[in-house]
Amino acid sequence: MAQLFDPSTHPHRRYNPLNDQYIIVSPHRTKRPWLGQVEPPQSIDLPQHDPACYLCPGNTRAGGKQTEVYEHTYTFENDFSAVLPPPIPQAPVAPHHLLTAEPVGGGCDVLIFHPRHDLTMPRLSLQDIERIIDQWTTTYVKRGSEEGIRHVQIFENKGAIMGCSNPHPHGQVWSFTTVPTLIAQEKTNLIQYSDSEHPLSDAPKGPGGKPCLLCEYAHTEVNIEGAERVVVKNDHWVALVPWWAYWPYEILLLPYRRHIPSILHLTPEETHSFADILSRVTKRYDNLFSCSFAYSMGIHQRPVPPSVPDGADQDDIAHLHIHFSPPLLRSATVKKFMAGVELMAEAQRDFTPEQAADRLRACSEIHYLDARG
Amino acid sequence: MAQLFDPSTHPHRRYNPLNDQYIIVSPHRTKRPWLGQVEPPQSIDLPQHDPACYLCPGNTRAGGKQTEVYEHTYTFENDFSAVLPPPIPQAPVAPHHLLTAEPVGGGCDVLIFHPRHDLTMPRLSLQDIERIIDQWTTTYVKRGSEEGIRHVQIFENKGAIMGCSNPHPHGQVWSFTTVPTLIAQEKTNLIQYSDSEHPLSDAPKGPGGKPCLLCEYAHTEVNIEGAERVVVKNDHWVALVPWWAYWPYEILLLPYRRHIPSILHLTPEETHSFADILSRVTKRYDNLFSCSFAYSMGIHQRPVPPSVPDGADQDDIAHLHIHFSPPLLRSATVKKFMAGVELMAEAQRDFTPEQAADRLRACSEIHYLDARG
Ligand SMILES: [Zn+2]
Ligand SMILES: [Zn+2]
Repeated sequence: MAQLFDPSTHPHRRYNPLNDQYIIVSPHRTKRPWLGQVEPPQSIDLPQHDPACYLCPGNTRAGGKQTEVYEHTYTFENDFSAVLPPPIPQAPVAPHHLLTAEPVGGGCDVLIFHPRHDLTMPRLSLQDIERIIDQWTTTYVKRGSEEGIRHVQIFENKGAIMGCSNPHPHGQVWSFTTVPTLIAQEKTNLIQYSDSEHPLSDAPKGPGGKPCLLCEYAHTEVNIEGAERVVVKNDHWVALVPWWAYWPYEILLLPYRRHIPSILHLTPEETHSFADILSRVTKRYDNLFSCSFAYSMGIHQRPVPPSVPDGADQDDIAHLHIHFSPPLLRSATVKKFMAGVELMAEAQRDFTPEQAADRLRACSEIHYLDARG
Repeated sequence: MAQLFDPSTHPHRRYNPLNDQYIIVSPHRTKRPWLGQVEPPQSIDLPQHDPACYLCPGNTRAGGKQTEVYEHTYTFENDFSAVLPPPIPQAPVAPHHLLTAEPVGGGCDVLIFHPRHDLTMPRLSLQDIERIIDQWTTTYVKRGSEEGIRHVQIFENKGAIMGCSNPHPHGQVWSFTTVPTLIAQEKTNLIQYSDSEHPLSDAPKGPGGKPCLLCEYAHTEVNIEGAERVVVKNDHWVALVPWWAYWPYEILLLPYRRHIPSILHLTPEETHSFADILSRVTKRYDNLFSCSFAYSMGIHQRPVPPSVPDGADQDDIAHLHIHFSPPLLRSATVKKFMAGVELMAEAQRDFTPEQAADRLRACSEIHYLDARG
């Protein structure tokens, strides 16, 4: 006879409606012994200014150019961009229909968050974080208005175990003349959701009063009894470990009160609230294992701003949200590996998203380095 | 005026017809300096028998059970399986349509390739590799015949930087009561290809004489002028760096002479040829950076064997192929990171698949440890 299902004990899979993939959750498995690789712990004794850091004010970069002496934030074009500005060459004739190549143009910007070499987002003031949001918005508008650009991707790689070569706080913005795969997937799924029949709910709605997948999801998580996946919530934003989380402490951060297509659409109050929740989420992350918590962070929103100020079009179906994908699993030195069955069959995690949210809720919002002595 | 497109210089994207995703290739970018994390080099002075290794003959495992004294290969059920055998509990009632969970049952087997703690596949004899193929086939048939099992995934995680906790040569087989995401995607794309109109070619055909994506692709790569993505070819199999390779030295290994749905369908000659090419590919891999080359390897084929011996059904649309996904990028200690824009927008690589194939072709087929004095 079949037992009663218990999601905190029984292996099961959950559906991710953003990418149309499943993830296997194996909560019973956390008992197994760890014999694998541990990462070198990250240094925390960083200088305020490092003469060897090409992101510190006034220093020279590998390409030979100089980083100016800046006061708050500073943006420059990556000296080793993965995509190059127009003119882009013409698409070649493919020798076979399975061997096609499409030229990609665009730009890669580096966004320095602050002159201090040693201060990451969780240790910056709200005012400084608002300056970063402003820097994101400016770059989004600038790059998104360039001819031929079809998507602007804002992201941050933090931590050596995420492949980030420099601890100086900075993010990146890559713009593309093509729509990237994961963006196209999310858009397809958002459109499909808005066109489907779903039970009526009192969640906010997307363009044309049609249902929005992320309005509906955020509203549900905020209001569900126990709110067991919510980590932090403020007046306009909620940070939660999504039902379909892949990374051990993955967080989805999004506005839950109304449908907002991009950071350009934020009111001053919503922007302030955004800075507040970014500060609180990143402090909890650092406090989880008392380390500078590594992650990849990315902003998903309208691919480019509307071409007419206040103009609306089909891209407004996008619901602004931020993905945090952190690799750490059980300490500052043990990370999750994406390997084996996950590369060959299906994503898998051990402890549940609810357990992850629980641990993040238990973390303080005073940064551990500021709490000492 | 637009320049002439040169795939070894200009950024471009390529289409992966197996997973319907794109990958950006940035070949101009290999000039940028490396400032990131390096991995600890792997130890090569392993004992032939390690008393602390739970996979060595006669030793006790973490769960308390004993690994028998075996002579060639040895298979046992993982003491910490990610999925559990039936009875599986009933699917619960979802509190909301975005919060559904589906129980997953199945089994996780560990396949030890050889009693010697220090010998990985590239250092085993062809006879020993044929025994591993036999072990894969036996487990595929056994697990694939169990009630409710819908997919059997054979894979190997090799190397600490791939999250593998034990250097003793072994692989795994996970069986599922559900069809995993990546398997379902490949099947969808294989079906779509076989139903589409494509220019007639003299490649082998799939079931019903319809075009097979992988028959067509393998045939094309073997016959194209210069065969610049082919690494090794023997009588029945070809190993190539696919046009859409994501990992720096990714290899797709597949039979190119006829459509073969699974390892169960191999003739003795094809099996021998399979062992030969596995040996040659893994030797080249180890020789590339003179180290035990880490990878995830997975066998894609019919999800389960036919239920009637010699029976054919729609699953025969699968074309047996092996994916090798190795993380190393430019030395034994510098790996590729899947992070940032790749997690948020689209996969990206620097040097081209053709350049990777070129370097692998230049490697010897005599293992560097056997070549020394
Ligand atoms: Zn998103
Ligand atoms: Zn495959």
